[in-house]
Amino acid sequence: MSRVNRDDDPVFALHRDGKIGVELTVPLETRDDLSMAYTPGVARVCTAINETPDLVYDYTWKSRTVAVVTDGTAVLGLGDIGAAAALPVMEGKAMLFKQFGGLDAVPICLDVTDVDELVETIVRLAPAFGGINLEDISAPRCFDVERRVQERVDIPVMHDDQHGTAIVVLAALRNAAKVTGRTLGDLRVVVSGAGAAGIAVSKMILEAGIGDLAVADSKGIVHVDRTDLNDVKRLFATISNRGAFTGSLVDALSGADVFLGLSSGQVPLEAVQSMAPKAICFSMANPDPEVHPDVAHAAGVAVVATGRSDFPNQINNVLAFPGVFKGAMAVRASRITEGMKQAAALALAEVVSGELSPDCIIPSAFDPRVTPAVAAAVADAARREGVARLP
Amino acid sequence: MSRVNRDDDPVFALHRDGKIGVELTVPLETRDDLSMAYTPGVARVCTAINETPDLVYDYTWKSRTVAVVTDGTAVLGLGDIGAAAALPVMEGKAMLFKQFGGLDAVPICLDVTDVDELVETIVRLAPAFGGINLEDISAPRCFDVERRVQERVDIPVMHDDQHGTAIVVLAALRNAAKVTGRTLGDLRVVVSGAGAAGIAVSKMILEAGIGDLAVADSKGIVHVDRTDLNDVKRLFATISNRGAFTGSLVDALSGADVFLGLSSGQVPLEAVQSMAPKAICFSMANPDPEVHPDVAHAAGVAVVATGRSDFPNQINNVLAFPGVFKGAMAVRASRITEGMKQAAALALAEVVSGELSPDCIIPSAFDPRVTPAVAAAVADAARREGVARLP
Repeated sequence: MSRVNRDDDPVFALHRDGKIGVELTVPLETRDDLSMAYTPGVARVCTAINETPDLVYDYTWKSRTVAVVTDGTAVLGLGDIGAAAALPVMEGKAMLFKQFGGLDAVPICLDVTDVDELVETIVRLAPAFGGINLEDISAPRCFDVERRVQERVDIPVMHDDQHGTAIVVLAALRNAAKVTGRTLGDLRVVVSGAGAAGIAVSKMILEAGIGDLAVADSKGIVHVDRTDLNDVKRLFATISNRGAFTGSLVDALSGADVFLGLSSGQVPLEAVQSMAPKAICFSMANPDPEVHPDVAHAAGVAVVATGRSDFPNQINNVLAFPGVFKGAMAVRASRITEGMKQAAALALAEVVSGELSPDCIIPSAFDPRVTPAVAAAVADAARREGVARLP
Repeated sequence: MSRVNRDDDPVFALHRDGKIGVELTVPLETRDDLSMAYTPGVARVCTAINETPDLVYDYTWKSRTVAVVTDGTAVLGLGDIGAAAALPVMEGKAMLFKQFGGLDAVPICLDVTDVDELVETIVRLAPAFGGINLEDISAPRCFDVERRVQERVDIPVMHDDQHGTAIVVLAALRNAAKVTGRTLGDLRVVVSGAGAAGIAVSKMILEAGIGDLAVADSKGIVHVDRTDLNDVKRLFATISNRGAFTGSLVDALSGADVFLGLSSGQVPLEAVQSMAPKAICFSMANPDPEVHPDVAHAAGVAVVATGRSDFPNQINNVLAFPGVFKGAMAVRASRITEGMKQAAALALAEVVSGELSPDCIIPSAFDPRVTPAVAAAVADAARREGVARLP
């Protein structure tokens, strides 16, 4: 097989031979080292864990290790590209876990897409990990997979495409409301996209007390009279859309306070102009936001956020998942509850409370205050909610 | 849960929080770094791998990554202690892969023991790895698991308890024959132990041309008239024991040239004394060799080896598996053939050809010549046997 050389492209050059490695954290230079780290010494540690299972957290890397698990069915915006082709993303995710959370994450790319088999496989590989970050698993399968894996293991499980996004959006929305002189309860929201992120964001902001919310998929607003809804969307139709919108996204945007773009569909200028005064527009499609920031500003939108790093207010999951797992794992939480996610969003919003402005509703991805703040809030919430196994 | 403190014990202190970590091999300090290693840049790499699957070897860590997979059913001499309690051994193994082979190995401890399910699970997690090292899986299940996983994946799979041990024993036996003025064909061998290592060692030395060989399990010599044999032992009875021994291990030792201890049963002095002149005694049980070196020397044995580091001639798997995987993965071998294992044993034996003596039939675990010599021989053999996918 050829070794195709694309390394004149700096992105490929950076990826050559991968982006992560395994390192020794204790020396292995002498026969003594070998006899302690491996046989015969290691047998005593194994025996101790066999007798007292919780010791696995003290004497292995479990307490700081996250499995980054995908089946390659919904990778970035690329769709179902398979397990192996998803590996560069999972390596990148592992880098982010280390750099921003000090956690050791391992890419696990599974060649299986049947939900039952995927769940079984993830449950079986859980023993050596302290947390499971599900990644790029297609909707609506991802909802079942997350719930069923979490029911079977005693370590925190989180599908980051859902909840990482939702936490950051809620944090940004809290500050956007504040900077425009409103509360969450004052806001009517239109969400574009009923996939993993769209559904999770919608649930989380409802839980946080948003005024009202309508979700649109590619067929228009999700409402109870539609006959083409999957189970998740059907359930969702019953708990949202108190405004009883039944038409298109554009219809619902008229007079709305907030647009949250979590699909790739472009929104016309006229629809943005039809929104309420002091409108808030988060357009998170990458690389082409549903509403370009220049268009949003031209339409008079008060607060603009995107998924891009070259505009202010980047909605970036790295603001959430390192701290969420760090905090949950620090107290050996058995799961990640709604309260822990809400606490993460609140803590993340508060990081920039002293410097709040329309162009600063969310910290930068590299703000060193973020992970400690989120982790502390999540650990506190885990204790409050009774899922922490360490004080 | 309590954090039990056993750290006044240096072995436990060394194991505190585990022995390995994940490291970044490229920087992630700036927005530019982030946009190349993660979104949006990473999408181009994923797309390229989706279009040209072999690129996963070039642009991810796959080409240097080994899954160290166990189900915790036969951990060291401790038996079936379960997946989590096996983790300290798998971390140790990962350290050895890195230190001695420059490979990045990841502990995978699977909470499943049914052979069908274990095979399926390992096959599903293969995409992100370049090799699979099976470890501490009980016999006879291990034979099926290895064969069936290898049939399903295109990366090398090796159960180290079998073949790592067999390669090192064969290398040592070649040099023990040479140092006592004989060839492998001159030797009649008695193997104590018909588990994973006993069977694999026996097969490999038969393949290498040993004179004759009898294997004993806890019931005595394995022979065709026994009715209590599992499939593997039954098959083995038909290809070994041309001397037609039917009694106990001790009976078969009388006049034998070689004793290979791969169980924990002690062998009486008289039995050792009954062996042929210039006898060879490898007693690999740990920490108590089947024949203590002092006893062996007192009985007139010419060449003595053990599994212990505090005597000469340590039979240590680390002499084999790092080089075997390094060589196989360097040429993207699709499997590890008998020829590759035989080549590994020959190369390992030749490392000490210039300094051969009864106390130096095998290199030290820390001899820097070992892994390069084994890897080169394995890569050459893979090319000769047509399983290499790189020139």
